[in-house]
Formats: sequence, C-alpha cells, structure tokens
Amino acid sequence: MGQGSSEFDLIARYFCLGVPSVWDSQGIGDDCAIVKIGETSVAITVDTVALGTHFFDDADPYTVGRKALAVNLSDLAAAGAIPRAFFLAISLPNADNAWLKRFSCGLQEEASRYGCALLGGDTTRTVSVNGMPASATMTITAMGEGQTLRTRQGAQVGDDIWVSGTLGDAYAALKMRWGHWTDSLTDYLASRMDTPTPRVALGQALNGLAHASADVSDGFLADLEHILERSHLGAKLNVDAFAISADLARLPRDRQLEAILTGGDDYELVWTAPKSARERIKALASDDCPLSLVGEIVAEGLLVEDASGRTVTYDRLGFDHFG
Amino acid sequence: MGQGSSEFDLIARYFCLGVPSVWDSQGIGDDCAIVKIGETSVAITVDTVALGTHFFDDADPYTVGRKALAVNLSDLAAAGAIPRAFFLAISLPNADNAWLKRFSCGLQEEASRYGCALLGGDTTRTVSVNGMPASATMTITAMGEGQTLRTRQGAQVGDDIWVSGTLGDAYAALKMRWGHWTDSLTDYLASRMDTPTPRVALGQALNGLAHASADVSDGFLADLEHILERSHLGAKLNVDAFAISADLARLPRDRQLEAILTGGDDYELVWTAPKSARERIKALASDDCPLSLVGEIVAEGLLVEDASGRTVTYDRLGFDHFG
Repeated sequence: MGQGSSEFDLIARYFCLGVPSVWDSQGIGDDCAIVKIGETSVAITVDTVALGTHFFDDADPYTVGRKALAVNLSDLAAAGAIPRAFFLAISLPNADNAWLKRFSCGLQEEASRYGCALLGGDTTRTVSVNGMPASATMTITAMGEGQTLRTRQGAQVGDDIWVSGTLGDAYAALKMRWGHWTDSLTDYLASRMDTPTPRVALGQALNGLAHASADVSDGFLADLEHILERSHLGAKLNVDAFAISADLARLPRDRQLEAILTGGDDYELVWTAPKSARERIKALASDDCPLSLVGEIVAEGLLVEDASGRTVTYDRLGFDHFG
Repeated sequence: MGQGSSEFDLIARYFCLGVPSVWDSQGIGDDCAIVKIGETSVAITVDTVALGTHFFDDADPYTVGRKALAVNLSDLAAAGAIPRAFFLAISLPNADNAWLKRFSCGLQEEASRYGCALLGGDTTRTVSVNGMPASATMTITAMGEGQTLRTRQGAQVGDDIWVSGTLGDAYAALKMRWGHWTDSLTDYLASRMDTPTPRVALGQALNGLAHASADVSDGFLADLEHILERSHLGAKLNVDAFAISADLARLPRDRQLEAILTGGDDYELVWTAPKSARERIKALASDDCPLSLVGEIVAEGLLVEDASGRTVTYDRLGFDHFG
C-alpha cells in the first residue's frame, strides 16, 4: 500500500466497495489497514513489485527478494507494528530455478532479520514476453500486530515533522542507472536503492510518541501530503534540515533537493509528534539512522522554505504510476 | 492457494523459510493458512488470477472481478471460515477506466453477496505487451474466521469422500472455447467457468461434520491427492457416483470422466467425513448444489473404479501451471 496520489484516486474511485466490515477497520488509503481481530490490533499491507517497473529486467534476484519483503515491512513500520507473517503470490512466465533460488535467498534473509514467517502463497504462470524478467510480479501481503498501531491520521497543529535516514539516495541511484545523471554510481547509493532498510524497530519505538506516520515510498512531499490530507492540515518545511548522505552531498544542490523531496523509494519513515516528545525522539537516532526535524504542522497549505526563509518550489510530487 | 502438485513443490522447495511463526499456524500447503491471532482462528488465503492464463484476453472484466474474489472465497469455504475481509493487488499495463469499472462491478457484487469487505490494496503498472489484457494480474488476499477451521489434514480410514455440485462443467466450457471439443458451448457451462459459486455456506455447515476438506480448483483427483498426502492415506472412488450436469451428460462418457476427474476450475468442495455424519451431510444438499458420496478413505493407494468395479485410469492429474 502507500500509493501515489492519482493512483490512489483510481483505487478509491472504483474499489471503495460498500460492504461493511464486521472487523473494526479504517478502510482503504493508509500504509496498512489496521484491523481489530478479536482483542488484537493487526496491521495488514499488500504491495506488489514488478520487474521492469520497480526493478531493471536484469536485477539480481537476491535484491528483488529482499526488497519485495522490505517494502511491506516498511508499511508495517509506519504503523508501528511488530512483523508476524507474510504471504507471497508470485507470477512468472516460467519456473527458472536459478532465479527462484536467489530470489528466495534474499527473501529468507529479510524474513529472518525481522522475524516475519512465510505462511502461504500462490504461484501463477503469466504470459511470456521477453524472457522471464519482463512480466514477473511478486505480491506480498504482510501482517503485524501491536497495541497502539498508528496511521496517517492524527497529526495536530504545532506537531514537529520528523523523517528518518537520508532521503534521496535511492532516487539518485535510479537517475544514475538510467543515465539521466552522469555522475558515477557508488556502492552506497546502489545499496540504498537495492536493499532499503525498513525502519521496523524505529516504527515500534515511536508508539506513544508519534501522532501520525507514513513510510516514504512515493517521495517525501507525496507521503507527507498523505498525512496532511488524512489529518486535514498543512505543513511548513525547512529543506536545509534534512540529513543528507555524503554521496548525495556531492551532487548539485538542485539535484539533492529533487531527490530528497520528490524521489521516493526511500522506505524511511515520516511522522509528526508533539514538541514535548522531541528529546525522547532525538534519543532514538543512531549513526545508521539519523533523525531529522524538518518542519512543523500548520493549519493549512504546504510551505517549503530553505533555512533563510526563501520559498522552494517543485513541479512534481513524487512517483505516480498512473499519472 | 490450492496449487497443482509440482507447482506446490516449487514453492515448498524454495520458499519454506526457516523463520518460526510467533502466531500459531500450520504453514504452507493448504487452501488457507489457519493462524491463531489472539483467541481468534483466522483463515488466510492468497490467489492470483492472470489474464491470458486464467482468462481469455477479451474476457468480460465483470466476470474477471467476480471470479478473482470467488476463487479466494472458495479457499475460505474449504476451511469452513466466515469471509471477513480482502485485499486487492492489481497489476496493469495501463489504467483503462472502462475495464476497471466493469471489473470493480463484478468484484463488488461478489463481495456484497458474501459480506467480505475490501480493506486495502495496491496498484502497479506492469510492462505493456499487447494492450492491457495480456499481462494483467489481480492478487487477492482474503481472510475469514471461525471457531473450528478445517484443513486438508485429518482424514481417517473409513471416512466417506464427498464432493459438492457437478464437477467438470468449467473444464468442458474451456475445451469448447479452445475448440478442442467441437460441441457448442451452452450458457450454463459458460457460467460455470466464468462465475463459479464459492460454497461458503456449505463450508461452514460442514464444521463439526467433515474431518478434512479442500476446494476443487486444480482438478478433483489432484485436490483429493492433497488431502491424501496431508493425511498420509489412500482412497477408493466410484466414478459413477458423481452428480453430473445435464449439459455435461450430453458429451461422450470418456470426456465426462476427463472433465470430472481432472478438469479443475470447479470451485466445489471435496471433503471426508465419518459415516456417522452421512445423514446430516445429505440434508445439506439442495437443487442448486447436489452432494455426491463418491468414495471411501483407505489406508493407501488411489483406486478409481466404475460402479461395476472396473478400474478407470487417467494419465494426468489436473492442472499444473509449471508441470
């Protein structure tokens, strides 16, 4: 889950079925559905990765396996849930054993790291196109639980806006692989695109501290917009407050900002929290995962400034598959 | 879920990850995973339908929507679960509004009929091939609950073997559409292929009566084999005991048997139950859904006979995507 805006409109337009849920739930449009099953709050998310769309055709199947699960774990992290189980639906033109073995190896590594058990799946043969990679999709449904699960809703005026990690690295790697940016791709940037780190522990640590959160999959501004829309509020941002990786820092500033604000594919967390939680949140930062206080929730609008108070403008808001 | 045998081998070989589940669960290989969440038993299933594989490219999107959900509801029925919620991951080359609207209409009708609420989803753009239908896949994760959920495991020697409905109709429709069989396709047979009826109420009514069950998606013999493998037992069948539709009855007997025993795509239920439950099970039959007592569980082997005791042999065991 975690769709771009017009992509989500598409779902909302056609798939908001009028069937009431017996299980208490928040419905469509968040990183996870939060469903009350018995006395347990369960976060459930579904995400598909497609070769040719989310990966290059010749992507290492090991990284495909890791990332296919990581993007779902990132949704669970946004909700503050403890990962418990996942289901895999894999659609392939043919059963390429070497490819599946590597894919499974990556999947297993990621599943083990976060204690998420594979409990079922389905395999489907799809119509072949240009050999196997072209039309292969992997859909993972991941489930987690927690006592106080969190959504995009609930931000309050005056909340701090925080983001984890260094945004824009994955986007920079993509632009370099595409050849749009001629800078040479570093291992670090490549790893940030290929094997993102879902912020599972951070997501849980924010339970009781954050008011609202989302994962940064579509692009920082796009994902912040999701919080603002669901909370009916606005934001004021300082673009100079974002932590930035050494590798991204070597690029021109306009490219840095494009990558940070609109890039997507980061699988970091963005959240809002009361100022009273500021010190406790700062204490959650680490060398591997800096936390940046990048703005404040306001009543309406989206104001993006630099540290000197000058307005920064952008003409696109992150990825949008069907835009 | 509900895979053909070598297709399942493929999953078992690569995806039986050694991550222990905190939630008590039965693991991979059944129609549903039965997961204990808190005090609630939850059945979870994942199934993908692909245009070009499960549907003709020009299939009416209304029937695609109905069937995409029906095949998952059928898995829940096999477990005896009450449908509660589903998640939709849809991968398309482009957003064709007219197609999506019709698809959604079918999905909504099926969801309403069985009280299954759409709680989330994901949309993904896939690489285009020959216009939209060719590489479109829809993966649905469906969840249900129940007090005494049932699996393929637990059959006992001496159990009756039962099957619902009239098998083979969907297979006959497919063979006629392919032109393999030149008989003219009737509306009845077409409807059995396009809009199968998941046996949700029957599945629940069998709670406390049936020992083991599966849905008939891969073909009767293949799905019975799943029960036999999981229960480490054999079966003796009488092919003349299967209820048969008037339309299938018009075909030669060898085609009837091929369709009934190996056809697949029926979405009926096969189950085993003690002889003591026979009268209570007979009482569950209706004009729309005859129930056939087609054999008996034995210690080992699979003996297929006709009413006169002659052995019937077949050279394939239902569908197998990666066979």
